[in-house]
Amino acid sequence: MLAFAAIPSVSTDPAYQEGMAAAAEWVSRRMKRAGLEQVQVLPTGRHPVVYGEWLHAGDAPTLLIYGHYDVQPPDPLDAWQSPPFAPTVREGRVYARGVSDDKGPMLIPILVAEAFLHSGGQLPVNVKFMFEGEEEIGSPSLAPFAAAHGELLAADFVLSADGAMWRSDLPSVIVASRGLVGLNFTVTGAAKDLHSGRHGGGIANPLHALARLVASLHDEDGRVAVEGFYSQVEELSPQERQAIQAIPFDEEQYLADVGAPALVGEPGYTLLERHWIRPTLDVNGLWGGYQGAGGKTVIPHAAHAKLTCRLVPAQDPADIAAKIAAHLEAHLPPGVDLSVEPAGPGVRAYALPRDHPGLLVAEQVLGVVDGQSPVRVRLGGTLPAAEVFLRELGVHTIFFSFSTADEDFHAPNEFFRLQRFYTGMEAWARYWTQTRNFVVVPISD
Amino acid sequence: MLAFAAIPSVSTDPAYQEGMAAAAEWVSRRMKRAGLEQVQVLPTGRHPVVYGEWLHAGDAPTLLIYGHYDVQPPDPLDAWQSPPFAPTVREGRVYARGVSDDKGPMLIPILVAEAFLHSGGQLPVNVKFMFEGEEEIGSPSLAPFAAAHGELLAADFVLSADGAMWRSDLPSVIVASRGLVGLNFTVTGAAKDLHSGRHGGGIANPLHALARLVASLHDEDGRVAVEGFYSQVEELSPQERQAIQAIPFDEEQYLADVGAPALVGEPGYTLLERHWIRPTLDVNGLWGGYQGAGGKTVIPHAAHAKLTCRLVPAQDPADIAAKIAAHLEAHLPPGVDLSVEPAGPGVRAYALPRDHPGLLVAEQVLGVVDGQSPVRVRLGGTLPAAEVFLRELGVHTIFFSFSTADEDFHAPNEFFRLQRFYTGMEAWARYWTQTRNFVVVPISD
Repeated sequence: MLAFAAIPSVSTDPAYQEGMAAAAEWVSRRMKRAGLEQVQVLPTGRHPVVYGEWLHAGDAPTLLIYGHYDVQPPDPLDAWQSPPFAPTVREGRVYARGVSDDKGPMLIPILVAEAFLHSGGQLPVNVKFMFEGEEEIGSPSLAPFAAAHGELLAADFVLSADGAMWRSDLPSVIVASRGLVGLNFTVTGAAKDLHSGRHGGGIANPLHALARLVASLHDEDGRVAVEGFYSQVEELSPQERQAIQAIPFDEEQYLADVGAPALVGEPGYTLLERHWIRPTLDVNGLWGGYQGAGGKTVIPHAAHAKLTCRLVPAQDPADIAAKIAAHLEAHLPPGVDLSVEPAGPGVRAYALPRDHPGLLVAEQVLGVVDGQSPVRVRLGGTLPAAEVFLRELGVHTIFFSFSTADEDFHAPNEFFRLQRFYTGMEAWARYWTQTRNFVVVPISD
Repeated sequence: MLAFAAIPSVSTDPAYQEGMAAAAEWVSRRMKRAGLEQVQVLPTGRHPVVYGEWLHAGDAPTLLIYGHYDVQPPDPLDAWQSPPFAPTVREGRVYARGVSDDKGPMLIPILVAEAFLHSGGQLPVNVKFMFEGEEEIGSPSLAPFAAAHGELLAADFVLSADGAMWRSDLPSVIVASRGLVGLNFTVTGAAKDLHSGRHGGGIANPLHALARLVASLHDEDGRVAVEGFYSQVEELSPQERQAIQAIPFDEEQYLADVGAPALVGEPGYTLLERHWIRPTLDVNGLWGGYQGAGGKTVIPHAAHAKLTCRLVPAQDPADIAAKIAAHLEAHLPPGVDLSVEPAGPGVRAYALPRDHPGLLVAEQVLGVVDGQSPVRVRLGGTLPAAEVFLRELGVHTIFFSFSTADEDFHAPNEFFRLQRFYTGMEAWARYWTQTRNFVVVPISD
């Protein structure tokens, strides 16, 4: 793990191109050494996929193992206690960029396969490994790659080494994540910036118009005010909502952690429900006019905003984007023009069937290795890979990661708890053994 | 004029420090050569004032002649047809940075004094010249300088060589200008930027709150919605409004010139009235969150805005700023904090008494040299110098400039019409001669 974490495989920055190639090569060598077969570094539009398999378990299910070898940029460098690509063990933790997201977790199934193959010479299940190198840049090649290699990747379901656990003190399994859709819009007034003294009072100020549009997107209580925004949303059953409400969660502690003056949001739902089962609309950036020191008395010619929505099942990203664009058009004040630009196709929300055998195995295994049954959690964020595998390969994804969300991935001093690495090894071995006994029925939704 | 315009006297940029000193020295030498007395370069906090006088006209009125020798920065350089500090004559125009604002206009009274003194040996009036070097940076030293040199500057009124005419095809005199007050405000939510997936739906988004605040500042029709904003505004008499409405002004042409889709603004007033006699509130800059390429799903921890108001007579800048701050506090949505920061003390609106003798002389002289009576115009913008002289010296300011607002000052290829330079010489000579016959009654408002 230390040698792997020492490779600077930053996918977003061309300066790390060598590190990316070296990491793919390292993973490929390590998979061969473990005894996996057909190990290949397969090209994509940008960074390659590393593939390997072992398919001699006969009628046993076939699992597609997913992970990623790319990491986030290490900046800011001076905030690191030890250099980001010089892995260091302190108090039972390994510190290095990417060690928790996702190098440590993705190594676990390789080492488990090696242990099985080097001891008994075989695995309890058929496995196909695919590790991508673009997760940290939004997996742009994943869908075309899956579409082009449908046969190679065919499996009963995906078992993902990526997808950190929610909290370090509570074993959990992810059963759903929200989708995502975004758009950018620009309001323009005069053809150029105007002097606010000479022209103020006669020409619409795009900043005022933009503010009016953004303000119109929510009602006073925090509900999204876009017509039809909630019309496809499926309400959860009382039982499902009770299950969420039963999860120990301290709203006051949460508020203190984020440092905000108050919790706000859609009435009628708890905070966790608002994070997990309700769609949201957030403006992520907004700008126009003079932003420097001092003042400049300008009526700017344009104002800009970027917004994204988190979606829940049954909401269609394209439909939601169209409804927002229609809302903006309908609420545009006089004297300005509007242009709306979609920000990609979006990602649908993802939900795992509550009785998916892969999920039941995960719950069973975690109950044994952690000594308590895991809670079913949802992600407020978005898991594009799960949605891609469902769409392109027709299979669901079980998240079975042994990093946790507090391990500062995407931040300085990222770490991975060594104890969870060993727990993960035991859990993956048990998972494969248990899965052998399941008859997996292909899913069609 | 060409030698003067060749000196790069950019007041805002310390790199031009030598040019500023050279320009003050040039003006001082030129005033001595003209025959003016007591010529001095007087220090201020930043750039000096050049002073000179001729006070041998006995009982005739004393005029304080105002202008400025500093200029705007020349950028962008590659947009200039000839270099900004290499004055070039093309088709009856001199092209150079600052030639219209204010080097050409301020040279006129020096040359007129020289003509009088070198021909007849005396002037028709007593004159004091003061040329500042900080007009383009907001005249920060002007009020303290005037306060400290009250006796030196004492005069019956100010005759300003600065203050361009409104339009090149219509002689005009300025009788009023709007005041200015600004403030900056910041809305904060959580202590740091948050992931919109993990946290969206539970924490207030400062961009939404800021948009709501900005939207609340105007009603649907474009009136300022801040309580008490209009309470001190004095309505003009029907006669005064008729005089404004009689001024030829093509709203359609104006709209085409600025390139906006429609005229908007406070109902019940013409466009010129909205520009000249009504106060306004404009947000000049607004920003927060992610503004780069692509997307970033962030709920930013802060959002910022800068706003300024144009004020009309009787509105007090401090009072208006306080009312806006109170409005923002009162309209703050839940879950965010607000901080408001004043942007300087502001400037009151300025209005010249309609029967000020200096104004009547200006109208008479322009009627002769231009062959038609000038119209009385107001400035939508702000003239800090006039307000400073009234406050510190107790005297009004007559604007008697022979540049016009279309001569691209503050922009590339600034020019000054040579014909207006000669017209200006004639007009200033006539002005002084006419003024000799006036008995000026000191003003006390």
